[in-house]
Amino acid sequence: MRGIVTFYLTYLLCLMLGIACVALVAYWNYSYRGGFAWDGSIKQFNWHPVFMVTGMVVLYGNAAVVYRIPLTWGHNKLPWKLLHAGVLLLSFVLSVVGLCAVFDYHNTNHTANLYSLHSWVGICTTALFTAQWVMGFTAFLLPCTPTTVRALVKPAHVWMGGIILVLGIVSCISGINEKLFFALKGNTNGTLPYSALPPEAITANALGVIIVAFGLVVLKILSNQIWQRPEPGYEEGVYQPLGYDGS
Amino acid sequence: MRGIVTFYLTYLLCLMLGIACVALVAYWNYSYRGGFAWDGSIKQFNWHPVFMVTGMVVLYGNAAVVYRIPLTWGHNKLPWKLLHAGVLLLSFVLSVVGLCAVFDYHNTNHTANLYSLHSWVGICTTALFTAQWVMGFTAFLLPCTPTTVRALVKPAHVWMGGIILVLGIVSCISGINEKLFFALKGNTNGTLPYSALPPEAITANALGVIIVAFGLVVLKILSNQIWQRPEPGYEEGVYQPLGYDGS
Repeated sequence: MRGIVTFYLTYLLCLMLGIACVALVAYWNYSYRGGFAWDGSIKQFNWHPVFMVTGMVVLYGNAAVVYRIPLTWGHNKLPWKLLHAGVLLLSFVLSVVGLCAVFDYHNTNHTANLYSLHSWVGICTTALFTAQWVMGFTAFLLPCTPTTVRALVKPAHVWMGGIILVLGIVSCISGINEKLFFALKGNTNGTLPYSALPPEAITANALGVIIVAFGLVVLKILSNQIWQRPEPGYEEGVYQPLGYDGS
Repeated sequence: MRGIVTFYLTYLLCLMLGIACVALVAYWNYSYRGGFAWDGSIKQFNWHPVFMVTGMVVLYGNAAVVYRIPLTWGHNKLPWKLLHAGVLLLSFVLSVVGLCAVFDYHNTNHTANLYSLHSWVGICTTALFTAQWVMGFTAFLLPCTPTTVRALVKPAHVWMGGIILVLGIVSCISGINEKLFFALKGNTNGTLPYSALPPEAITANALGVIIVAFGLVVLKILSNQIWQRPEPGYEEGVYQPLGYDGS
């Protein structure tokens, strides 16, 4: 009982931090960066952080913890599998739209793509996410996949799930940091430089800190064994989040 | 037996990636950034990435996995505890010297400290690392600490250990990305901008990718339950790396 109360308090924290991430990344780009458009201008770039944080971090993290919610521990797992896969598909689509926003902005303005370390880590994260979704769909949603294959794939699927979230956070923090150095140069239009910590810098730095906090709460939920969904044939100690490699 | 061979192959990969990180961060700053000094110039700043990557990531990661090495699974754990704590103390000292390098450089050049998101995440990581070392020393090395307290603290100690490594990697990637945008502006002294991917950009981007790979290998070693040191009173499924919260 105490475990369930602790779970729901942690889950509430996860939801609140997730909402704070989405609200703050939208507020930052709407209020300080000039808002949104899809016209090849910097307003198109502004969709990039919003879609990446919302898709790759917040929706992704929420989809990852869905099986930990005791309310979902009924006998039929299929609806929750569909929810898990569906939210991750939405997360993936938002991430791709977020990437399109920046590629299209760069191409329109004749700027190079994929040169920064942020972009290298980010594109690897998206590639791993794609492979993870396809593998997950093939192993756990196609009815023809044997149960033995599912049991073999599951530890790797769970471990990779956590790692992709970590890589998503690395991408977001390096990206927000880079954007603030680009945007807050000072001396233009009377804006203060990043080093003077104007309100925008505090807002976006706080966004970064909240993204990290959200990620840590999700990783904590994923890795706490007593919060794992009890399953038929489930053996304690076999399925380790960020763990056991199936060898 | 197969588990031990797989462990040593993974551990060899961990060692090689760690050596590559140290060699590459030193090479980058020596060959492309003008080398090292402690005179308030940019050459003093160059110690910052070298000490942080070596201390906060490579030594830290190697200290974290020391109990997983089957060779250390003798009856007396104390020498390995001293090695674990000693390497982490060295890692901590290097990290502090790395921070001194940048603070002193900033102060000499009248530049603000602790304004970027990189610095916020980095300083939080160092604070958590300090707390973790003091807690670890108090709980596991002071002879007067009761065994019950050690058992209670251990899961949190192991989980925090992994999280601090993740935060260290977030700090390194955002820092390397930031440094490359600062350093590779192009048009000065005939250097190419970051966006043209000159050899320095590829070197430092590769360093970032290798740091991430090193971190993932360490997390994999830490989280694989079959590689955990067998201990008296050890119950399978109780101590979860990045896991169980002791509640």
